[in-house]
Formats: sequence, structure tokens, C-alpha cells
Amino acid sequence: MFETLEVGKKIKNGEFKELQLALRQKLLETQFDLAGRDYPVIIVVAGLDGVGKGSLVYRLNEWMDPRGIETNTFWEHSDEEESRPFFWRFWRKLPARGNIGIFLGSWYTMPAQAMLNKDMDQEEFALYCKQIESFERMLSDDGAVVIKLWLHVSRKVLRKQLGEKMQVLREFPRAIDQPYDISGKYKKSLEISEQLILSTDSSRSPWHLIESADDNYRDITAGELVLAAMQAGARRASAPTEDFPDEQEESIGQQPTVLDSVDLSRSLPKDDYKQQLARYQDKLQELAWQAYQERRSVVAVFEGWDAAGKGSAIRRVTGAIDPRLYRLVQFAAPTDEEKAHHYLWRFWRQLERDGRLTLFDRSWYGRVLVERVENFATPDEWQRAYGEINQFEQQLTDHGSILLKFWIHISKDEQLQRFQAREVEPHKQHKITEDDWRNREKWHAYELSIDQMVSRTSTRHAPWTLISGNDKPYARIQILKTFCDTMSDALDTD
Amino acid sequence: MFETLEVGKKIKNGEFKELQLALRQKLLETQFDLAGRDYPVIIVVAGLDGVGKGSLVYRLNEWMDPRGIETNTFWEHSDEEESRPFFWRFWRKLPARGNIGIFLGSWYTMPAQAMLNKDMDQEEFALYCKQIESFERMLSDDGAVVIKLWLHVSRKVLRKQLGEKMQVLREFPRAIDQPYDISGKYKKSLEISEQLILSTDSSRSPWHLIESADDNYRDITAGELVLAAMQAGARRASAPTEDFPDEQEESIGQQPTVLDSVDLSRSLPKDDYKQQLARYQDKLQELAWQAYQERRSVVAVFEGWDAAGKGSAIRRVTGAIDPRLYRLVQFAAPTDEEKAHHYLWRFWRQLERDGRLTLFDRSWYGRVLVERVENFATPDEWQRAYGEINQFEQQLTDHGSILLKFWIHISKDEQLQRFQAREVEPHKQHKITEDDWRNREKWHAYELSIDQMVSRTSTRHAPWTLISGNDKPYARIQILKTFCDTMSDALDTD
Repeated sequence: MFETLEVGKKIKNGEFKELQLALRQKLLETQFDLAGRDYPVIIVVAGLDGVGKGSLVYRLNEWMDPRGIETNTFWEHSDEEESRPFFWRFWRKLPARGNIGIFLGSWYTMPAQAMLNKDMDQEEFALYCKQIESFERMLSDDGAVVIKLWLHVSRKVLRKQLGEKMQVLREFPRAIDQPYDISGKYKKSLEISEQLILSTDSSRSPWHLIESADDNYRDITAGELVLAAMQAGARRASAPTEDFPDEQEESIGQQPTVLDSVDLSRSLPKDDYKQQLARYQDKLQELAWQAYQERRSVVAVFEGWDAAGKGSAIRRVTGAIDPRLYRLVQFAAPTDEEKAHHYLWRFWRQLERDGRLTLFDRSWYGRVLVERVENFATPDEWQRAYGEINQFEQQLTDHGSILLKFWIHISKDEQLQRFQAREVEPHKQHKITEDDWRNREKWHAYELSIDQMVSRTSTRHAPWTLISGNDKPYARIQILKTFCDTMSDALDTD
Repeated sequence: MFETLEVGKKIKNGEFKELQLALRQKLLETQFDLAGRDYPVIIVVAGLDGVGKGSLVYRLNEWMDPRGIETNTFWEHSDEEESRPFFWRFWRKLPARGNIGIFLGSWYTMPAQAMLNKDMDQEEFALYCKQIESFERMLSDDGAVVIKLWLHVSRKVLRKQLGEKMQVLREFPRAIDQPYDISGKYKKSLEISEQLILSTDSSRSPWHLIESADDNYRDITAGELVLAAMQAGARRASAPTEDFPDEQEESIGQQPTVLDSVDLSRSLPKDDYKQQLARYQDKLQELAWQAYQERRSVVAVFEGWDAAGKGSAIRRVTGAIDPRLYRLVQFAAPTDEEKAHHYLWRFWRQLERDGRLTLFDRSWYGRVLVERVENFATPDEWQRAYGEINQFEQQLTDHGSILLKFWIHISKDEQLQRFQAREVEPHKQHKITEDDWRNREKWHAYELSIDQMVSRTSTRHAPWTLISGNDKPYARIQILKTFCDTMSDALDTD
């Protein structure tokens, strides 16, 4: 694979200067065009240690306007990064729409190193490559231009370049630089590189391999690749897009939905409620501390009809837990920083560290519920959201998080009664708005969306729990009990 | 001080229920009113361990709408927090305008504990109290309603409450809870508390002391205090405000400014430039690694006239430093999340960790430059900014950061020539806009602002360096040399 990159491609200084002048201007033009666009550009610079990644990154920064470019490196990990799913560190550094993010060190660094050090077996490696693929697809589906550059030099050149570097290092020793020992590792490194490239090459985010023995050739080639990819991105963005027709909604029609399986007649007498509430809250308090001690995080999603009793159910959960251990996250309209990123970004940024609970009062499921029904998301967007959500949740559970997802179901009649009661009670009037009445008119469209949401995102690792909500006490105990049971199971197996 | 809080104030359950109903509704109303306002509410809940802070926080959350309240606790510190100035952890948790932030554990926790454990001497303590005062004044000047509640119970009651808690703890041991040993410490704790309260009590953010032996009394009293403070905040916000008249600008008139002291005739021959550039860049590279090893962070601010050569000077600095060690931050218009906080918030959030360099291409000085000249900030706002900036920079240097501040000065004629050149050169056209020409017309107003900025914010710890910029090579070398000299001095003394 790499043989074609050891042929000694070169650009002479005079020619370089000429090429550079033209290239630089086009890059700048393209960058200014990008600033007004609604997608980001992500440039990954990869390759073995010593091939000149840093020099290329410096050159790209020099050629383009530093406003709107950020270079991200991931070489020292903070405990805040390490106590969250692996990709959190990359999510939080993703460039906003209209901006360029250069990743010097990226999601490719860890698997390459881990394989070289034999900290990862072939199976994990394959799984990890799949995650990279999904991650990059998610970004490019969202419009991002993903440009991946792999730099390569022959063993001989690398040895020479490292030799020069070692010379510098001997003079100015640095804490972080491990001695560059490529003897016996070069061949293995190339094998792993090849595997990594082959399993993460895709039409939307292809790898570009660049011979890096000559700085001039490397920089011009990389610059031209970046330019071409950015120009193609602009053309794509300007072209009219066709949305998938939203056929599914029609075809489901008036069939029963998964919600019909919920027995809404269930209720709990007051005395039983009080007793069970105390019991499960005590239990939950203990379990929250146990989870803290075992450094397991809990992520709980609360969804439900308007007036289903989400808020009061959540308060029964938070009432049991030490405020030091949980964070409740509510979602208003996204901020402009949030709008400038993939829609999952605003949930990623809220994740608490290992050992804590993050409670989401409404969540990423908004994409396939309200955003779908109200046409805030295109059919293409919400349809691919199922897969994106499953990937996201898989990363949570793979990391060791305990995931709970509740849909609180009530009947349409029960909702009407609660709406009417809210309009009368003074301290509840704020809870009822025009929007609620409007949403109510779309009950059927929501039913279909909920049905599809549950069927598409109830996975083995992250099942939905449908809560019978007409009787609030019954609903609350169901939720507390599910919390306790799920956490007990997960923590016991540790 | 605390004797009046040991008299056994109580509210019976029946009365509590009645009071609660009315209070809760008013709190909700006030909270909804707040949502549309442009200031946040900050509630600090303090007191010795075991006095019932957690219960009160739970109650406040229960009474109000969880949307728009966030409870913050600071009991486990991440390495990301510890490698930045102490207040960074609080800045990043400050509520946005229209929201309520409850601080259970706050900037009062550390000094109280440190004094009790004798990790802090009286002098440090006094200094720290001053910092708290400035911090709270900064917030309240910005419109924030700061409500500080100190809960107290007598030794006897505390012992009883801790006893019950210990009982629970024996049953469910928790990793984080230290045994509550108040024997011999209660008196000392009260002494420290009293000192802390007295030195941080102010008219804008006064302390409220609450007897906490009876839950009902504590919760109602705290709720009413919160209500009253929020209502007063709303009244204050609705009242017409008078801005200070901007007299200073007039009085300075056509006097010479500090900029006149810059010798703009200095220049550097090309050969000298090349040689010195290489020398200082090499030196800076070394120093950056040394700073990394010594875990000292560097914060550098680049300000200057339009077309003064800031960008190219910055590139000579970044060109010398490993991209893993620095981050360049540029400032476009603030995002809406940034607008929803104190204007310093967006700079705090960008600070890199110990051992790294953060380079600011434009900075917090915008407040007293462009925001002042263009009337984006009121005279009251930019005038108090000098003190706020000095405080901020003091915290950076106290933490051990090395601070550099450059103003690149050029003559008005030189600027004109550069503007004209930019309009001709294709790859520089993007650098010149209508705004630049408009700003140029306000040259004199800027001169006065710069003069005042330098005189007000050139402190011993954080002096300005005025760079003679008509000759770009000379300017760049001046900057690199100042970097090297300042860092050498700071690092040598370690």
C-alpha cells in the first residue's frame, strides 16, 4: 500500500513559491466562502511519529486565515475526558459550522498506539474501526466536509528525520517525548496503519495518502486536496437536495401502536404509594452511592406526553439522590452555539462524569418526536437519527454507563382533564401554554412517531420502559422501581 | 454573632403548609418574571456540615420550576479545574441571564476548610476574602442578584443531627464522607465562619443568617429571603438607570498620550531580522517546553491598530511553538451563550491548562477599546472594567500564569498605506473592510481609550508592552524578545 509513496516526489523551491501563491489565494477564497456556510470542515492529519504532521499543520495555519481555524491535539488526557465515553473528547472539540477544525492527533491515534503496544486485540480493533466509521458518517451526513490525510515516508527517510529530531531532543529534553525507537516497530506500524486506513476509508470521508519526504511536495499536495474537498463541499451544499419522501407515516395508518400495549387502568392506593415511595427512594439513595463508588455513571431519559407527570416523577427521583451525585438537564430551544453543531453535540456536552447521574428532562429523542412532527427536521434528518441515537447510546453503555429511558404514557382524555385542571390552579397555570393545546391536536402523528421511536431504538443495551401514567403515584413507583432494578442488576454484576 | 440563631425558632406543620402554598406561588411568579430578564440569580447556601444545607437546596428545587435552576456542587475537583486559577471552576458554572444557580458548596467552602485545617494563614485568608468580595461585586455590578444564606444550629442540635446522619452512614458507608467529628472543632468553626461572614458582607451581596434547627422555619425563612431579593432585583432592573457621564474623554483633549512615547522610526535590516528571528524562535521553543515542564501557563494578549500586523506577529510566535502546547483564540462577535454571561466569562472559558500557552488575538480589552468607542458598553460598564480586568489578571498571575500584553502601535499614515496596499493585493483583500475605514475615522477616540487603558491596567504583575510597529520585522522581533525575556525571568525564579 505504501510503496507508491516512496518514489521521491519533489517540488523545487522556485516552483513551490509559485504554486503556493495561487493555492493560498484559492484556499483563502474557499475559506471565506465557508464562513457563510452551514457546515464545518474537519481535517485529520495522521501518520507515524516523525513524518512531518506538525509541519503540515503549521503550514495550513499559515496559508489560511487563523480566524475560523482551530488545531486540536490530544496528547495529554484530563480526568474529565477519561471519565466519559471515549469520543466525548472529540465531540467537544468539533468545529462549529463555517469553521475548520484540524485534528493533529485524532480518533486514529489511540487505536494505532494500542495495537502497536498490544493493548488491543483484533476484535476490539475491528469494533473501534466501526465506531470511527459511524462517527465520521454522522458528521458528513450532517454536512461536514471530512478530509483525512495520511502522511508517509520510507523507513530510511524516517530514520533520518527522527535522527535530526533526536539530536534536538538531546539538547532540549522534553518530558513527553518518548524516545523514537522505530527499530523493529516500523514494519508493524505500517501493517496497523494499512489496516486502519482500509477499514475506515469511505466515499464520504476517504483517506488521502501523501508522500512526505519532501516538505514542498507534501504541503502543496495536502493544500490542493484540502482545497478540492472544500470546493466539492461548497458545490454539494449549493446543489438542490432531494428529501426522502416520508412514506412511513402514511403506511402505518390507524394500526395499533406499541402504546396500546400499556395498561392505563393501573393505579396504586395512597398508603401503598407512601410506603413504596419511601422504600424505593431509600434503595435508590443507596444505589446512587454504590454507583458512585463503582464509578459507574447513570444516564436517564424522561420523555412523555405533555402533562404526563414527567416533572413530578423526576422530582421523586432527584428527591432520593444526594445533589452532589446528579445533574438534571432540561432542554429549551438550542443556543446558537448548539445550532452550530451536529444535533447530538448539545447532549454530549451535558454528560456527567463517571459515578454521577445525568437526568435528561426531554432529550435527543426530540429529533424523532417534536422535530419530526413539527417538520423542524427533514425526513432525511430524523430518519438517520435512529441510527445515530443507537450509536450514541451504544457508546454510553460500552463505556459502562447505565442507561434508562422512560416514556410516560397517558390517555388523551386524561391529558384533557389535566390541561383543564392546570388552567384553574394558580401555581400550575405556567405549565399550560398554547403550544400544549396545539401539540394535542397532533396526538395521532405523535403516536406514530413514538411507535416508530420505540421500535427503532429499543435495543438490548438500551431498552425503553413504557410507564402507565394515568395514575401518577403508580407511574412514579414504576419509574423508581425500574431505576432500582436496573441499577441493582448492573451494579451487582460488577 | 450566632447566639440569636439558637433561640429555637419554629413553624408548626399546619402553618407551614399554608405559608408554603402562598410562598411557592410567589416564587414561581418571580421565577417566570426572571426568565425574561437580563440578569441571573445566584444563591449561595453555606454553613457547617450537617446543618441542613442539602435539605434546603432540595426544597428550593421542589418549590421552583426546575427549568431554569441549576444546583452546583464542588466536592470533587477535576484536574482540569485544578490546573487553572481557582475561580475558573465557579465561572464555568455561573448561571446565564434569566436563570438561577444554586451553589451548595461555593467559593466559601475552601477557605473555611483550609482555615480549620490550618492550611491557610490569616494573611492568605484576608486576601482570599478580598477576592470573594471583588468576584461578587463584579457579578452584582453586572446585574446579578446574589443571595447568600448561612445556616446555623447550636452545638447541641448539630450533634444530634450528625448523630442521626452517622447512624445512616454506618449502615450505608460512603466513600466521600469523612467522619463528622465536631468535638473541639465546633468552636473553631464558628470563629472562622464569623470572620468569613464579616469580611464578605456587603450591601449588594449581604449575608442572611438563618436558624436551621427546625426545617419548616429554615425553609420558609430562606424562601422568603430568596423571594424578597428576587423581587428587589426585578424592581431595580425596571427602574431607569443613570449612567455616569463620560467626562474623562473631554478632559483629556489633545494632550500627548502614552502612544507618543513609542519611537516609530525604529526598524531592522532584513539580515538582522532573519538572524534574530531564528534565534528568538529557537529560544521560545525551548522556553515553551520548559514552561510545560514547570507547569506554568502563559497567557498572551495581542492588541493593536487595524493593520498593525497583529496576525503576522502572532504567526511568528506560533511558528516557534509546538502545536500541542498552545492555543490561539480569536474573537468574533459573542455567541448568545456568551452574551448571557458577564463579559469576562467568554475569556475565562478559553483559558488553557497549566503548562500551555493561550494566545488571545484581541481580548477582554475590547471592553475598554472598541466597546467603549462604539458605545457598545455604557460608560458605567467600561469604567468598572478596568478594575475587573485587573482582578482577573491578578488571579492569573497569582495562579502562576505568565502574562504578556502587547499593543502594536503604528502611525496613522502607515495605516493608510497598509489599507491601500491591502486593497490591491488579491490575497489580502479579505483583510480590509468598511469597518476598518470607519474605525480609522475614530483614531483620536481610540488614542484616548488606549492611553487610559494602558495607564489603568499596566500593573506590576501585568504590564503592557507597547510595540513600535511601523517596521514589521522590528515589531515581530520586539514581541518575540519580550516573550523570551519575560518567560526566562519567570521560569528562572522557579
